Amino acid sequence: MSEPFDAVEIIAAKRDRHELSDAQIDWVVDAYTRGVVANEQMSALAMAILLNGMNRREISRWTHAMINSGERMDFSSLSWATADKHSTGGVGDKITLPLAPLVAACGVAVPQLSGRGLGHTGGTLDKLEAIPGWRASLSNAEMMSQLEKVGAVICAAGDGLAPADKKLYALRDVTGTVEAIPLIASSIMSKKIAEGTGALVLDVKAGSGAFMKSEEQARELAEVMVKLGNDAGVRTVALLTDMSTPLGLTAGNACEVAESVEVLAGGGPSDVVELTIALAREMLAAAGRPDVDPADVLASGAAMDTWKAMIRAQDGDPDAPLPVARETHDVLASSDGVLTRLDAMAVGVAAWRLGAGRSGPGEAVQAAAGVVMHAKPGDTVRAGQPLLTLHTDTPERFDRAVEALKGGCDIGAAVSPTGGLARPVVLDRIG
Amino acid sequence: MSEPFDAVEIIAAKRDRHELSDAQIDWVVDAYTRGVVANEQMSALAMAILLNGMNRREISRWTHAMINSGERMDFSSLSWATADKHSTGGVGDKITLPLAPLVAACGVAVPQLSGRGLGHTGGTLDKLEAIPGWRASLSNAEMMSQLEKVGAVICAAGDGLAPADKKLYALRDVTGTVEAIPLIASSIMSKKIAEGTGALVLDVKAGSGAFMKSEEQARELAEVMVKLGNDAGVRTVALLTDMSTPLGLTAGNACEVAESVEVLAGGGPSDVVELTIALAREMLAAAGRPDVDPADVLASGAAMDTWKAMIRAQDGDPDAPLPVARETHDVLASSDGVLTRLDAMAVGVAAWRLGAGRSGPGEAVQAAAGVVMHAKPGDTVRAGQPLLTLHTDTPERFDRAVEALKGGCDIGAAVSPTGGLARPVVLDRIG
Repeated sequence: MSEPFDAVEIIAAKRDRHELSDAQIDWVVDAYTRGVVANEQMSALAMAILLNGMNRREISRWTHAMINSGERMDFSSLSWATADKHSTGGVGDKITLPLAPLVAACGVAVPQLSGRGLGHTGGTLDKLEAIPGWRASLSNAEMMSQLEKVGAVICAAGDGLAPADKKLYALRDVTGTVEAIPLIASSIMSKKIAEGTGALVLDVKAGSGAFMKSEEQARELAEVMVKLGNDAGVRTVALLTDMSTPLGLTAGNACEVAESVEVLAGGGPSDVVELTIALAREMLAAAGRPDVDPADVLASGAAMDTWKAMIRAQDGDPDAPLPVARETHDVLASSDGVLTRLDAMAVGVAAWRLGAGRSGPGEAVQAAAGVVMHAKPGDTVRAGQPLLTLHTDTPERFDRAVEALKGGCDIGAAVSPTGGLARPVVLDRIG
Repeated sequence: MSEPFDAVEIIAAKRDRHELSDAQIDWVVDAYTRGVVANEQMSALAMAILLNGMNRREISRWTHAMINSGERMDFSSLSWATADKHSTGGVGDKITLPLAPLVAACGVAVPQLSGRGLGHTGGTLDKLEAIPGWRASLSNAEMMSQLEKVGAVICAAGDGLAPADKKLYALRDVTGTVEAIPLIASSIMSKKIAEGTGALVLDVKAGSGAFMKSEEQARELAEVMVKLGNDAGVRTVALLTDMSTPLGLTAGNACEVAESVEVLAGGGPSDVVELTIALAREMLAAAGRPDVDPADVLASGAAMDTWKAMIRAQDGDPDAPLPVARETHDVLASSDGVLTRLDAMAVGVAAWRLGAGRSGPGEAVQAAAGVVMHAKPGDTVRAGQPLLTLHTDTPERFDRAVEALKGGCDIGAAVSPTGGLARPVVLDRIG
């Protein structure tokens, strides 16, 4: 026995509600990365962590053990200040797409290492891959060079960054162990700290379409992450944002790219614009540029120029037409009234089932699959008008998508013209 | 998607403390057997079951799903009545070895499908394999023929019997998910019901050396299993027995065989004799032969004759010398007094570390490794006398075995000659 611990002892300790020691955490994360701790052992441990929790010390140590499993990047040679943003994931959350070029156009570089879709939430890389030619994988050298030249890069995290997290993330996805605050916080923050950004703004979502259903859970997650970031020397703040209804009017891949381009062109749905500007302000402030107003820069068209440069730098054609789905199906309003609820989870699952997401690792997604919404909560609708249009290349998927939407929207009596139905997008700020 | 359920949905349901439906249980056990549900998914589910529990309906359904994963045996063609016994596992628990031939010598056949050692508890097959030539694997036909001829067989369960359990048992061992009442009860009872015995006596152990540390947990496990058995048409009773200190004076493989032969020869430690007789009485009563007194049959030497026939029928030589360890090490009493505690878990772990048990699936065990005790709680000891002798072929193991024994025994002031230290072996009867 050359190993200092035994996986079963550590699983049993967490199962029996004991704290794990620093040495136990360091070992189990390292041994898992080396393959000495097997996937079936780590999934049992992940479930024990999910159900029995971890204290702040354990979460911090776990995060650093994941950072230490791989390399760290360093942007200090750039001529730019850097700021990154991370969203905990939601339905229709395309904010990274307009946000990264906008902040770059404001003078702060954005090194955005993104992921693929997980369950019903979309993945930024999956969305951008709807653009003809665009590639997600860059070498570290390509990434640095693009950052210096364009100021913004959205790409896949390299294999060298927090490999323990990469392995654990894939495992959690298939073992029902995603929804654990210690595991979510350490997963996000290990990548962001290892990435070496100077400032970080977290978009922590609460609501049916988020992993954290309640504002209370989301706040706890935000607080844990903000502390992890600041303790590691990354200026970190979090916005708590609403995910009870989808962001914007699209959930899918190509359709979300199109909506993002509308925002960059000065249009787009108001909630997407509002959240993009709010997050940009936080990123600029955290990176020491509170003087720049992102709303002005967006209006100037400079963000659109950066977007095009960013897409071209990764071999994408920003002017090429986006893929269009072979088949569409309208979901109609059943009565006259006001849309009082359009559930984010229902729309997210529908988009997923239409082919926008994957049900197993490595599965291909359909670029053109997704849901386009024609009304949002607070809007007046008429019986028989299309509420949603479903898009897919494989029409046999319509039935299960429609099933997912059952009970997902309510139409009520007309409300006063002042509305009051739509929740604010930004619920709170933690920093 | 041709599967009616998704593994993650079922894991998440149990994680979130929901009851699993009959259909979900049937599917997940079957899909796990087919390899559609992966090991890492089942281990997360096992941890969720361990921490969140299952109600009686779920346990019963899970048990029957495991039975349905394989074949069922049928002993109705035998000219004998049948009774089986199962112990939940303890340290020094060699009772099956004298018990099976004793009950057979009393006129009731014992089809004993046994397992290998799990963690610190020994395995009956590992013990019998210390006998030169003896083989654990029999075909169903060989088993039936030996049962008819000799009346007793102790062998490995065939691959066809509850294959779901076989797979799950190996998984639980390495994922810290052994100690769950629903999983223990369904594992034991699925094999016993599928095996087709007419009567079953359960030896449910409580104490430091058992999986159930408290009498309360052990009682709950016993009640669940007794109900499962009787509901399935197997006359089932349970004895609740003490496992705070090892059974007998040996824990290991060859040394436990030797002690069992002493019992069959009319000697042996009183606790081993007492429990063997108590379990034999229950088996005979459950099989409709309450008139036979196993104590008389043991004294007659008939049980020894059956033992020899049983060992020979599986190619073992009951008269061959048993393997002897290359090295021994004495653990001495530190003071004069009365041994007030000799912890079963400490002795079990020591024997395991000496090589009597395995730390990974498929590992070989040492036939001669183990612990021989020279005193039991209530015995007077003198400073410097050997309390325990450790046996192993690999002396580098002594250190960790001695470490396991630290704090495992207490020597106190002399007590009154009436003693009163030793707990009764049989604590209660449930049936």
